[in-house]
Amino acid sequence: MSADAPLIAVLVVSDRASRGEYEDRGGPAAEEWLRRVIVSPVRVLRRIVPDGRESVAAALRGLCDAEGADLVLVTGGTGPAPRDETPEAFDAVIDKRLPGFGEAMRLASLAEVPTAILSRQDAGIRGRSLIVTLPGKPAAAVAVAGDNEVFPGDEGVGRDHDR
Amino acid sequence: MSADAPLIAVLVVSDRASRGEYEDRGGPAAEEWLRRVIVSPVRVLRRIVPDGRESVAAALRGLCDAEGADLVLVTGGTGPAPRDETPEAFDAVIDKRLPGFGEAMRLASLAEVPTAILSRQDAGIRGRSLIVTLPGKPAAAVAVAGDNEVFPGDEGVGRDHDR
Amino acid sequence: MSADAPLIAVLVVSDRASRGEYEDRGGPAAEEWLRRVIVSPVRVLRRIVPDGRESVAAALRGLCDAEGADLVLVTGGTGPAPRDETPEAFDAVIDKRLPGFGEAMRLASLAEVPTAILSRQDAGIRGRSLIVTLPGKPAAAVAVAGDNEVFPGDEGVGRDHDR
Repeated sequence: MSADAPLIAVLVVSDRASRGEYEDRGGPAAEEWLRRVIVSPVRVLRRIVPDGRESVAAALRGLCDAEGADLVLVTGGTGPAPRDETPEAFDAVIDKRLPGFGEAMRLASLAEVPTAILSRQDAGIRGRSLIVTLPGKPAAAVAVAGDNEVFPGDEGVGRDHDR
Repeated sequence: MSADAPLIAVLVVSDRASRGEYEDRGGPAAEEWLRRVIVSPVRVLRRIVPDGRESVAAALRGLCDAEGADLVLVTGGTGPAPRDETPEAFDAVIDKRLPGFGEAMRLASLAEVPTAILSRQDAGIRGRSLIVTLPGKPAAAVAVAGDNEVFPGDEGVGRDHDR
Repeated sequence: MSADAPLIAVLVVSDRASRGEYEDRGGPAAEEWLRRVIVSPVRVLRRIVPDGRESVAAALRGLCDAEGADLVLVTGGTGPAPRDETPEAFDAVIDKRLPGFGEAMRLASLAEVPTAILSRQDAGIRGRSLIVTLPGKPAAAVAVAGDNEVFPGDEGVGRDHDR
């Protein structure tokens, strides 16, 4: 596949999966969904990191800046528990917040499960990369994603239009 | 009742109620609603403070840290007027914001009253306490709360799950 | 018309329109809509500035503080592109954010166009002025505004009610 194909990074945030104690299912579910809904060629990269503000922020910087990901999908660490620090890592690295994603994801999730009200999903831009944080549970991630159209290279993200 | 029963604090923010010039109805309405919808044993604590960033922030710190409240429900001061500083006090004390509550509350309120678009309700976590700011008017507070399930000790808030 | 009539400022943010390369349609569309939906006397003021954090922030300060606008409607610069810095300018000048407007505008826009999820519309208060940022495209701005009731001088904004 051409190196020009958009690069999508799937970042799994999980203490247990990063130690290999737990088989990560969120990452494969996200990749499977991506392969199904995106009909044009894409490259997909997967990473697993432990929970924590520093570990997640470092991974996001690497995926956006060094790897040049067009889209970074993050699963895990968006809940309200003490170890859930994905939103704090996200806040530390984004240039611009796109609040519509979190609002739409919570609205879609709330129709499925009441505890979705606790979720801190969000999206934003770093450089030319769009970062979207998804729920950690595979079913929830796919339910949410199914209601939103996320296209790498979509107009406007990270580049200026003519106006 | 056991001291192990979850502790819910109802914090009423109102200049006039705190001076006794006005009979507080939001606090009793909130407590009455809590007693009706929560079937398990709970302890309920009520406080009234004047509007203002410092007064509300100090009350929130005391209820979360010294009293050990599991849930703090705040009524009043979330509007757009100059004296409405509850959101600023809330911002100063929370560790993590849970944006889903404000979104859901505004959506529920907007179906009732157009001026709900002006409301700045929010929720977040301080330590092991969940803080939720509600509208100041009793009817609005109950209308909003009726559409959301808020359980003290609900999974995930302030403690880590196994993952 | 009396100088006591509420003052509404329409601020168009556009590099090309500010250089005269492009006929601004958002500003006239917004004014036309205002004249149609507001039946009481209002004064309307229009300004055009280039994109950018400083240019937009300076214009907002001038319209709120020097001109004394009751309502400032901003069109343009709320997208995700690098030159879209209206939200950053907005953040720098507001005293209080009113998140309900952005949420309601995105919800209304999403029913029309999927890319509305990328929009960063918002509203807030500076002193006694209500600032609302709208989409840059005339049709989108009117579609959004049609679903929300925005009245200059509405109760509560920038002044304290009796409580």
